[in-house]
Amino acid sequence: MAEVTLVEVAPRDGIQNEPTILDRAMKQALIGKLVAAGLRRIEVTSFVNPKRVPQMAGAGDLVSALRDDPAMAVAKPSLSALALNLRGAREAIAAGVDEVTYVVVASETFNQRNQGVPIAETLAQWRDVRAAAREAGCMTSLTIAAAFGCPFEGEVDPGRPAAIAAELAAADALPDEIALADTIGVAAPGDVTTRFALLREALPDLPLRAHFHNTRNTGLANAVTAIASGVTALDASVGGFGGCPFAPAATGNVPSEDLTYMLQRMGHLGGIDLDALIATGNWLGEQLGKQPPALLGRAGTFPGNLGKAA
Amino acid sequence: MAEVTLVEVAPRDGIQNEPTILDRAMKQALIGKLVAAGLRRIEVTSFVNPKRVPQMAGAGDLVSALRDDPAMAVAKPSLSALALNLRGAREAIAAGVDEVTYVVVASETFNQRNQGVPIAETLAQWRDVRAAAREAGCMTSLTIAAAFGCPFEGEVDPGRPAAIAAELAAADALPDEIALADTIGVAAPGDVTTRFALLREALPDLPLRAHFHNTRNTGLANAVTAIASGVTALDASVGGFGGCPFAPAATGNVPSEDLTYMLQRMGHLGGIDLDALIATGNWLGEQLGKQPPALLGRAGTFPGNLGKAA
Repeated sequence: MAEVTLVEVAPRDGIQNEPTILDRAMKQALIGKLVAAGLRRIEVTSFVNPKRVPQMAGAGDLVSALRDDPAMAVAKPSLSALALNLRGAREAIAAGVDEVTYVVVASETFNQRNQGVPIAETLAQWRDVRAAAREAGCMTSLTIAAAFGCPFEGEVDPGRPAAIAAELAAADALPDEIALADTIGVAAPGDVTTRFALLREALPDLPLRAHFHNTRNTGLANAVTAIASGVTALDASVGGFGGCPFAPAATGNVPSEDLTYMLQRMGHLGGIDLDALIATGNWLGEQLGKQPPALLGRAGTFPGNLGKAA
Repeated sequence: MAEVTLVEVAPRDGIQNEPTILDRAMKQALIGKLVAAGLRRIEVTSFVNPKRVPQMAGAGDLVSALRDDPAMAVAKPSLSALALNLRGAREAIAAGVDEVTYVVVASETFNQRNQGVPIAETLAQWRDVRAAAREAGCMTSLTIAAAFGCPFEGEVDPGRPAAIAAELAAADALPDEIALADTIGVAAPGDVTTRFALLREALPDLPLRAHFHNTRNTGLANAVTAIASGVTALDASVGGFGGCPFAPAATGNVPSEDLTYMLQRMGHLGGIDLDALIATGNWLGEQLGKQPPALLGRAGTFPGNLGKAA
């Protein structure tokens, strides 16, 4: 079975919209638990306006603290940060991330509302982001958000992500990895197959990543379909927390523990301690004062929980 | 895309383990709403010992009432009932169901605890059930329960369902349709592919059905995988209620509204009013005093709920 990498996004997408603000020590503890559970790619924060996303305040201090954390020095996870513009990307690079994830939204209205500029301007800034990141030795990934549907414009043309990718290829501005995000959780497996096939046609060799939300219960079905479409990295959020502040109905990233259970059973994923991941999702729920949407924490592993059932 | 039939099981598997007992009128109202939403195969009850499953008391009266219901006479849904032994099956046939669903459990321990007899005895009774149902003009389906894992014995051999099917074929005792049930919700898509491939090898022509629980969030991923494996009917429960009284950790059938959203988007399913189905799941939640596990009722359809998101 193809090896798949789980990219943990709880410290960013998972908590960004939660009203309970976690302090730096708490965020560092969360990331420490994720690394201890075996995760090696973690989106630790985003460099955005803290007035718009208060949970992400102090992003630079968090990254610096992680850089000084002995546990990180041993496990050497790849720490990424999300940026919506050149300024944010420069701050992330200066703070010392391993990877910069930049975002362009597939629909004009949503890009304008999320980034404050038109798509053309976002893509123009991307070229500078890419150059700055490469100069600093950072990996770059570009996420096409709302690639499966937009909360303002509705359906998104299936060829739209591939068209953006082709535009980047023509400008010699490809990232190291490209991701399609179902930001508001509307995709079904057929949508996944179509979009990734067109994207693969446009970019035969580029590593592909997918970011699904379980808003309409299709998250894991989309994940398994994405793997069949050649995707090699999948975003997930421990506990299944998360959403998007600009898409109010969008709650629930794919829960890392549920995705791990499925992928481990299929032989796609190794090196993760599922019990530690479940414990981390439950711990995060306690910090946020909410029951995690993840189901593994309620049902238990299998056949590990036989004693309980019998 | 292949046409798939949704088999609604809320009136049986969905509510059987709920502490709030619905009276006959309420069950009839539920079934009426499901038919009005466009569903045409409904598992309306089970003929089991009401001391063990109090919610299923009055099964015969319910079926009789449905037979006298003018809405049913117009829509002509196929009404099925589940039986665990010959006595239950005879009662179901006498009450006038269109279809008898009989159950054998893939593991000896679970069959003994669920049916009270060894597998061999359950299969011996099946031949009489089949003969009686055919004589009465009923469709027969046989569900192999715990086909993906057992709460007492753990992992179930992937070839076990096919071996049971081969035994029935050799005895000229095949049902009109055979189903594999993930009674305790442990399956991942790989398990689905393997088991249905072996089953298809043993029975090249028999219609296949699948019954998944979303206990570990893999329900819809398994459903879409089952369709790719040739399955033409999928069980689901409106609101996502349900479980198994003998497997305490098993909560949550695949929610009908979530499965319908996904299958409609993929072109697999026609004729169902998704909004009416969502309303029925919410209505059932009110009757049971519980929030439905289904997610469509919280997130809304797409792009139908654009106004809300914007």
